[in-house]
Amino acid sequence: MCELLGMSANVPTDICFSFTGLVQRGGVTGPHVDGWGITFYEGKGCRSFKDPQPSCQSKIAELVREFPIKSKAVISHIRQANRGHVALENTHPFTRELWGQNWTYAHNGQLSDYDALDTGMFTPVGETDSELAFCWILHQFQHEFPHGFTDVQQLFELVHRCGKRLQELGVFNMLLSNGDYVFAYCSNNLHWITRKAPFGKAQLCDADVTIDFQEETTPNDVVTVIATQPLTVNEQWHKMNSGDAVLFHDGVLLAQR
Amino acid sequence: MCELLGMSANVPTDICFSFTGLVQRGGVTGPHVDGWGITFYEGKGCRSFKDPQPSCQSKIAELVREFPIKSKAVISHIRQANRGHVALENTHPFTRELWGQNWTYAHNGQLSDYDALDTGMFTPVGETDSELAFCWILHQFQHEFPHGFTDVQQLFELVHRCGKRLQELGVFNMLLSNGDYVFAYCSNNLHWITRKAPFGKAQLCDADVTIDFQEETTPNDVVTVIATQPLTVNEQWHKMNSGDAVLFHDGVLLAQR
Repeated sequence: MCELLGMSANVPTDICFSFTGLVQRGGVTGPHVDGWGITFYEGKGCRSFKDPQPSCQSKIAELVREFPIKSKAVISHIRQANRGHVALENTHPFTRELWGQNWTYAHNGQLSDYDALDTGMFTPVGETDSELAFCWILHQFQHEFPHGFTDVQQLFELVHRCGKRLQELGVFNMLLSNGDYVFAYCSNNLHWITRKAPFGKAQLCDADVTIDFQEETTPNDVVTVIATQPLTVNEQWHKMNSGDAVLFHDGVLLAQR
Repeated sequence: MCELLGMSANVPTDICFSFTGLVQRGGVTGPHVDGWGITFYEGKGCRSFKDPQPSCQSKIAELVREFPIKSKAVISHIRQANRGHVALENTHPFTRELWGQNWTYAHNGQLSDYDALDTGMFTPVGETDSELAFCWILHQFQHEFPHGFTDVQQLFELVHRCGKRLQELGVFNMLLSNGDYVFAYCSNNLHWITRKAPFGKAQLCDADVTIDFQEETTPNDVVTVIATQPLTVNEQWHKMNSGDAVLFHDGVLLAQR
């Protein structure tokens, strides 16, 4: 299994605090030593940092932890390999263009009998079930909305149907974003929390780090964090149920089912 | 105008020395302050570091300069914006998947009347002439070789024809790679050098840095560097002519015309 981390916010926000907790699970408090990656959106553009090294030892993870890249949408993943060997091409998140938008995706879980999934014009580069499932989802998107989507609720319904179908093949927890919207699908393990005023203090589970969000934010900020397991000990996270999907925009929950 | 830097090598090689020279041109010895990026291939996978900040001030450029990522194929670019505002989505290199391979591209120059270029299923994310030309090239690739190429010489001929066509629209110096092969097309400004045993010393043009390649290499290493302008003062670089294309594999010149 792997660990997922996502963020949706209404103002460019750094994810240093949450990422500090996550990287500990890459070899210190967790066994996810087979690489990690993080994608930050800045407008329509995005940049990814990836490493097939354990995140707790990675020089690049150190940079990301200390260099506050501010973003309204982030997708991150640390990997414990099951399908596909430890290599850069098998390291999440994966990003592909569709409709002139960068779509970024990360998956936690394991699928079986996925070879029959038709990925259309999206061909996997690596060997993972995860990347193949991503290609299949984008092919569904393109098939359903050849000229792009106009109603995000309809796209959300499609994400939910795709998640349900993939869950039939195994475990499928997923984060997906185009930089504007952040989608999550829960097969068995996903939690989220929305932070807004009045902001309080939070204490990481995985490292002796506390943050006072009041000092880091303005009263209008809305920031949602989605993670496999809650990253803090003293806050109430929403546990998603199996088969549930959620959609966030500017940190706000737009839809769930 | 912008500056291009590419590498092809027969063993994973770091590009720290050349990159140190290049980043100086991003605000110190050159005016290219509108962002920079670099893509390293490791097998079929690749990772990019990008920043819309000037490279001479960038924390991420500092990491890349000091952290020796070893790669057999590298594409890098520093930008002086002409078409498209300064933003991450307009920052080279651009990477797209075709035939299950990651294709990475960077362009130096400026095109006019490029709106008529048909990009097929490849839609630009940003606003640059460069990204649109890249999408058009990939569409040509896919149209000519729907199931992938079998003979790289044929693909090289196509790259050359694409370059010629784009050069009719303006200035088109380009680097392109799938991690295995590195292609370059020269419209008016591109140089390359192949280093192999016996290795000597080299002195950067843009910084007071000297390297003794003999200490950094083994006798079998072959490393080709391609750059807009020669990066060293005491070596003989090949100046490409307008309309010329070259193809490198494992650091070795495979084809030119």
